[in-house]
Formats: sequence, C-alpha cells, structure tokens
Amino acid sequence: MAPKAQKFEIKTPKGTRDWSGEDMVLREKIFKTITDVFKRHGGVTIDTPVFELKGKYGEDSKLIYDLADQGGELCSLRYDLTVPFARYLAMNKDISQIKRYHIAKVYRRDQPAVKKGRMREFYQCDFDIAGVYDPMIPDAEIIRIANEVFDALGFKGKYTIKLNSRKILDGLFQVCGVPDNLIRPISSAVDKLDKMPWEDVRKEMVDEKGLAPEVADRIGQYVVLKGQRDLLEKLKQDPELSANPSMQQGFADLELLFTYLEAFDALHTVSFDLSLARGLDYYTGVIYEVVTEGSAPSVAATKENKEKVAKKKGGKSGDPDEDRSDDPTVGIGSIAAGGRYDNLVGMFSGKTQVPCVGISFGVDRIFSIIKASQTKKSRKNEVDVFVMAFGGGKDFTGLLKERSQICARLWDAGIKAEFLYKVKPKLQAQFKAAEDGGVPFALILGEDELAQGKVKIKEMGLPAGHPLKEGELISLDNLVEEVKLRITRKQQADQLAEQADQLKLVDGVEKDNNEAQASA
Amino acid sequence: MAPKAQKFEIKTPKGTRDWSGEDMVLREKIFKTITDVFKRHGGVTIDTPVFELKGKYGEDSKLIYDLADQGGELCSLRYDLTVPFARYLAMNKDISQIKRYHIAKVYRRDQPAVKKGRMREFYQCDFDIAGVYDPMIPDAEIIRIANEVFDALGFKGKYTIKLNSRKILDGLFQVCGVPDNLIRPISSAVDKLDKMPWEDVRKEMVDEKGLAPEVADRIGQYVVLKGQRDLLEKLKQDPELSANPSMQQGFADLELLFTYLEAFDALHTVSFDLSLARGLDYYTGVIYEVVTEGSAPSVAATKENKEKVAKKKGGKSGDPDEDRSDDPTVGIGSIAAGGRYDNLVGMFSGKTQVPCVGISFGVDRIFSIIKASQTKKSRKNEVDVFVMAFGGGKDFTGLLKERSQICARLWDAGIKAEFLYKVKPKLQAQFKAAEDGGVPFALILGEDELAQGKVKIKEMGLPAGHPLKEGELISLDNLVEEVKLRITRKQQADQLAEQADQLKLVDGVEKDNNEAQASA
Repeated sequence: MAPKAQKFEIKTPKGTRDWSGEDMVLREKIFKTITDVFKRHGGVTIDTPVFELKGKYGEDSKLIYDLADQGGELCSLRYDLTVPFARYLAMNKDISQIKRYHIAKVYRRDQPAVKKGRMREFYQCDFDIAGVYDPMIPDAEIIRIANEVFDALGFKGKYTIKLNSRKILDGLFQVCGVPDNLIRPISSAVDKLDKMPWEDVRKEMVDEKGLAPEVADRIGQYVVLKGQRDLLEKLKQDPELSANPSMQQGFADLELLFTYLEAFDALHTVSFDLSLARGLDYYTGVIYEVVTEGSAPSVAATKENKEKVAKKKGGKSGDPDEDRSDDPTVGIGSIAAGGRYDNLVGMFSGKTQVPCVGISFGVDRIFSIIKASQTKKSRKNEVDVFVMAFGGGKDFTGLLKERSQICARLWDAGIKAEFLYKVKPKLQAQFKAAEDGGVPFALILGEDELAQGKVKIKEMGLPAGHPLKEGELISLDNLVEEVKLRITRKQQADQLAEQADQLKLVDGVEKDNNEAQASA
Repeated sequence: MAPKAQKFEIKTPKGTRDWSGEDMVLREKIFKTITDVFKRHGGVTIDTPVFELKGKYGEDSKLIYDLADQGGELCSLRYDLTVPFARYLAMNKDISQIKRYHIAKVYRRDQPAVKKGRMREFYQCDFDIAGVYDPMIPDAEIIRIANEVFDALGFKGKYTIKLNSRKILDGLFQVCGVPDNLIRPISSAVDKLDKMPWEDVRKEMVDEKGLAPEVADRIGQYVVLKGQRDLLEKLKQDPELSANPSMQQGFADLELLFTYLEAFDALHTVSFDLSLARGLDYYTGVIYEVVTEGSAPSVAATKENKEKVAKKKGGKSGDPDEDRSDDPTVGIGSIAAGGRYDNLVGMFSGKTQVPCVGISFGVDRIFSIIKASQTKKSRKNEVDVFVMAFGGGKDFTGLLKERSQICARLWDAGIKAEFLYKVKPKLQAQFKAAEDGGVPFALILGEDELAQGKVKIKEMGLPAGHPLKEGELISLDNLVEEVKLRITRKQQADQLAEQADQLKLVDGVEKDNNEAQASA
C-alpha cells in the first residue's frame, strides 16, 4: 500500500502532535518515574483497544470521536481509561480485586490549547484499586501514590491535593435546600470556582439553573472553606450539617482517611476543599484533584474577559478549532484527578458491583510544566561507543570491515555502539557525529595499531592537559572487558557528579534562605 | 461523563482484545528485549498520532479504518508506522538522517485470526534508518538487528531471513518477457508462493492477469531458486540476466550486502530467495521477510482446500467477520518484514527525497509463538515484600497503623511493598495473598516484637528444615537496609539458578543431539 495522490497536506490532525527528540526522551522519563511508583505499590498493567463499542460514554457525546460506519460494529475512540477499565472488570467476572495501572492515549474532540498541553489526543496514566476492602484504606493509598509520583517528578512542596467527598457535597446541598433534581447541575457550577469568581458561579446557579438566590448564598458560605482536620471538626460542630445522613457518612470517611494518610506520611499535601466538585457523574465517595502553579487561569474566566481575549485575537469567542494556548482565561488545569466510583462496573455488568477508587495523571500537562523548567539538555540516543577509522590519503581503506566486525563484537556483548555509514570516512566527520550524539567514548581503529592487536579508546570531551586526553591503547583480546570497564566507571563518575550538583543546589537554596532570613 | 443506557454489549470490538495478567507481562518483556536491541544500535524513538489526515494510504482502502465525519478534518487510523514516519520526515526537513524506532498500535479492517495473532488492532515494532549513506551499509545493519532481536527472543537457529531485491525481481520479469504494465500484478502473484503451490500461482498469472503461458513458465524456473552467494554467482553466469541493467544493479547491491553481513556475522541466517516479492508498492531495493516454523500455512491454500475448510465449518468461504484461527490454509505469516523504500518521503514532501530502509517486527505473532512454547508461569506483579500483622483473639488490633507506617518507610526507600486492606486481617489470609502474588518476602509485625523494636522477615516458599524457614528477627532501626540486603541476595540467587537451568537445558539438547547422531 502506498500513497497515490501527489498533493498531500503535510501536518498532523488538529490537536495532535508528533513526539520526538528531547521531548520524547523527557516524556519516556516521566512514564518511567510514574510506572516505578505504580509497581512499588503492586500495580499490574493492562492494555485495552483504542476504540470501544459505541455508547459506552453517555453525555458530552460531542467530545467523542466516532469511527465511520464501514459495515459491522459501530465504535468510538476511548475518551478516558476509566470506562474501558470498568468494561474490562465487567467482562472478567473472576477478577474481584485488582490494582491496575494503564498508560495510554485517550481522545477528546475538545478545543485544543497545545502550548498548555491541552490536546485532542493525549496520554493518561491511571492507577485504580478495584475490589471490596475495609473502608478508606485503598483511598488513602491512592493519595499516597500521588504524593510519591509528584515528589519523584520534582514537584515536592509545589503541589496541593484538593480533596472533598461526594457524600459531603450532597449533604451540603441538601442542607442548603437545593432541590434533588438540581444537585448535579449545581455541583457542576461549583466545580467552576477554580476558574471563575463566585459572583459568576452564583449567577449561573440562579439565572441559568433557576436556584433560589438565598439557597445560592448559603452554598456560597460553605464553598469558600478550606482546611484539613480543623475544617472537618468545624463542620461537625454545625448541628444542621451533622444531622444529615449523607454528611455523617462523609464525615466518617474523611475521619478515617485523615488517620490513614497520617500513617502514610501523606497528610501534609492535602487540602480539604469544599469548592471541589469534579464534573463526572460516576463518583460516589472521596474526590480529589492535584493542582500546582499554573493550574488555574491567570485571568478569571468572566464573560468580559473572554470577550476581551476573543476581540484581541480578532476571532469569534468559542471558535471550536481555534487554539487557546495564549488565552489567559485558560489554565493548565489539574495535573491529576480522581476519586471513588463504586457503581460504574455495575452499570456495565448489570449485576456484579466492583467498587473502585483511582487517579489519573495528566502527563501531557505535567510534561509541559517540567519542560518549561528544564535547563539541562538531554541526549537523544544512548550510544556509548562510536567506532572510528583513523587514516587518510590515497592508501586509506576506511577499515569498514574492521569497524563492522568490532561493532558486531560490542553488540554481541550488549554494548551500545555506532559507526559512520561511509566506506572512507574523514576522522573529523566521525568525531563530529560522536559529539552531535553526545557519545561518551570513541574507539579509534588504525592500520598500525590493528597490526599489533590493539585499538585506541578515547573519552570524549576531556579538558586539555587531562592525562587521558590522547586516549589509551587497549588490547583487542580484551576489547569487551576494557570497554565495559570504562563505560561503568564513567557512569559512576557521572552519577556522583550529579549528586554533588544536587547537594550544591540544596546548599545554595538553604544559603539563600538563611541570608534572606538574616536580612529580614 | 458516564454511561447512560442500561444494556451494554460487554465485549471488545471484533479483532481486538484486552491484554492483562501474564500475557501482558510477557508482551512487555518482548518489547523490552526489542527496545534494548534498538537502543544498542543508536535508535531514537518517536510517537505519532494514532490517526492521520485521510488519504495517506492509497490502495486497499477497504482495510483502512476511517473516523466519522463530525465536522472539520477527515482522518483515518494508521495502517502501519511507515507512512507516518515518511510524513514525519517530510514535515521535519531539518532531519536528514535518523535511526528511529516506533512501537505502537496499527489498524487493519482485515479478517481476524485471533489465535494466530492476526488482529485488527495490533502492535508493530519498527526500526528504520533514513538518510543518504554509502550503499548497503544501513541495509546490512537492519538485518543484523533482526538477528539480534530474534536471538534475544529465543529464536536462535529457528528463523530464516528470506531476502530478495526489487531490482533483481524487476530485471527478472523484464528478461522473462513480462510486459511493463503487468510487472506489479505478476509480482503480487509471485508473493503468494509461500502459501499456494506454483500451479495455482501460474494459473492466476495466466488466467487472471493474462500473462502468456511461456512467460509464466520461464518465471517458474527462477522463482524456485534459493541460496546465498552461490545463487548470486549462478545468476551472474546467465548472460541474458547479467545483460539487464536493473539486474546488474541488484547484483552489485547483493554483492556488497553479503560482504557487509559477513563482517557483521549475520550472513548465516539469510536465504536469498527469488520467490520473495513483498506486496507493498513502495519498496525500491532489498526486501526481506523473517519466517519461522508456523509462518507458512499447514495446508496449501488451493481453491479446493479453502472450500473444504469452509464446508467443514458450515460457513461461506470468505465471510469477512469470521475468525480464521482454525483454518489450516492460514499460517502465522512472517514474523518481521521490511526493505528499502527510497521514494516514499518524496511522495509526501514533493521535493526532498530521504532514502530509507527498515524493518517491522510483528510482535503479536511473535507473542503467540513464544506463549505457546512457554512452560514456566510468570508473576503478574513485582512486589518484593508483603507486610503482615501477626495476632488474633479479641485484643488483636490488626496493627494497621504500624503496617501502614512500615510500608511508607519501604516505599520511601523505593522498595515494592503491599499489605492487606483490612483492619484486622487473619494471618492465613495475608500469607495466601502473598503466595498468590508470588511475593518473595513476608514482613511480620507482632506487638511483642515491635515493643522490642524488632520485626520478623521470612522468605516465602523455603523448604521444611531450611535454617531460615522460621524467619529472622531484624531491627526496625535498620529496616530498609536489612530488607534490601535480602531482596538483592535473593535476586542474585534466582539469576544464578536460572543460568544453571539454561546450562542444563543446553546440555540436555546437546546430549540428545549426540545420541541421535550416534544412533543414526
């Protein structure tokens, strides 16, 4: 199969992108860091098809990518990894307990904001614990996992896990007097408080959803509250709240959760936040969202601000294909989110309920933040040895056969090695290729040395005057051992240097802090 | 977003499947093995969107999955990873040389044969070398890479790399007298020789494609030929063949290729096979296909055989949704394939040509073969320590806090650990969970031991009478060090045992061979 037409539009579809070079290296590193944490907690991974039979996702179907009807089953690209997981559990009735992680792409026909990592095709990294257990223990472990992930990714001290409970929210709305049929719409309105001022949210509740103004005002008193155990205690003091059965369940849940988080040394990152509602219908218990600097928009998304942005860009407000990267009313959003969903599996299986709690990490957003703060360039490949031929003039054979044979010996020993695909390469061109790739060692073949059963190894980038600057002759008999020895030595030295750098950095920060304190 | 309807069909779409448990562990292991080889050769990885703008794939469009027209751009799921790579190179004109690998899913609306690993959604692992270099050096390295991959996957001595060249095939068809406009159709017919007898292929050429019978018979004399350098020499002796310009180029290519393969110690796996044609239009130079036992169908796909199979199954021959797993006229097919394609990038970019050579590994088929030959069960998770509470009776607290705290210490140190999500778990239930997971160590907490600042560590599965069968008391002060020491020691012991097993296996095979020879 090959392309026929002569004229192609050479781009990726809107809201999608290629990943390569240093971006790819960084993203793989992020995946590895997250996977290591997941495995540390006993996670096992699954993989599901990129499309599911149509109809698994209810609302918001305008965001769903459908496959064309080409005969046979109708399918849609997956919108998240949670519904496929629930479908998987419903299909596999023998699995009653599982800690599963899934790192894969999901698809949303949303308005993209490419620079902020908001794409139509993007990766999610999900960890979920399914099964019946004693209450709140897996919920606490999920939050501990979020801690480990963000600490390992370098966000230590720079993120907050906003936490709430559906049971508390439902109780709160009941106590405030929200009619049953308005609880979900009012909940969605509250969820916008991270990007809109209260006045606008209140307006939406009253004008659009038809809530009584005095009920909205009562809600307004609560949803500004944030804290930890102190807030829980405060709410429990309120006789009206603590008389509500849903609220009582929520209190008991959070009480237990805080106790377990403390044992996990994971309480300090959590903020119990009554404004957190989460849009998704299927949550039944605790909900959480991890935010960091840049998660919220830099400018509140009032109607006026939105119009101002649209005017400035000369576009219509709400053009669905327009990229919103430069729109200050659009933030990066949360960098992870999740909660407990006890009824989703039952919706698919019909009978068997498998309660679940989980979290989804927004790796593309995490990537954008880490990339923006990166100073050091990373290598694109991992080659350790560049095999070169030394020589010139009309008698120079290029030693292609010898370079190939030596590469083959290195490959056989598992050593990462390359050479230039040229019969008679110039030494300079070979050194340039090695430098461009950041390859740490050059193995230089010369006619005379080969005749003596020897070859020269040279560490790249040594400073002038270094005793090994000119390289060392090693015996071909011990080629593999000699090369491995030097690679290992260099890796160890690099690691130590990196550790030293980090210590200096910490030192510097502490010194700065001390100086700042002294001068304050 | 949540599902609305109450009745769902709980299955994956046709020709797709979930991956989990031991299958997933094995597949990840295969990916890791292949990736290690790719990196050893300086490969860098890229990731492209799962769908491309429509029209990138010309022929065979009935096999292409299209996305529904929901407004905006029209897109299709990618059919392979080669066209996206060519599109990527056409878009990134600054990249003139790259060794890239790409491991990702591709989509074909083909008739599935699930048990033989022929799926509609399946993984490909591609390695391609793009750029202008001295001839045949990268081509040889690709074949060397195929060698390393299959050796590392345990196929040593069990695979053949069938090799041919488009230039030689074109020359051959010209010399035999195939009209220019029939060269591609005749080439596709030749390509079926691995599953159909020559008589049927000849019939297709003459009856369906309208080739003169005497031309077909001349082709028939050549396409049965197989060899290495000997065959190349034989063809060169033929004055008519060696007068053909396309043939001359093909001879020169293979001459060089064989020389380089010899230097790479990779010639012994190659079979120069004039029946290999490869279906894809875009190949311009060497082509290859890796086959193993089971690649070819067990019964030739004659018309009679096909009808027999259809009759036996009570179905119509050619029902597109029917699974063909049990059809003996369908083999596993090739387990890797590729070749040189020098013009594909230019088809997209319009001007810039970037010559490429590459290979694609059919990992799902490779998986099926390895799985069928596996005897040892693999673990599903990687947990090293199961943290348990010892005790019972009405005073038993369950030590949940202590288990949590100790797990947190282990996690902080990067140790993979779990505990039972129960406030007061039975010791038996905890041991069962550890055993089910294949966890090597139990860390057993008891009130008395904790009071003394100690905890018991016990290696699971030790035989009765082993000096450490009852476990050892270790100090909580050195918890992390003590646990790490035992994990490392056990890993080393397991590795040595595995090496010993492999030696025994090789010994056994050699012994069998010697006995067989002696008795022959």
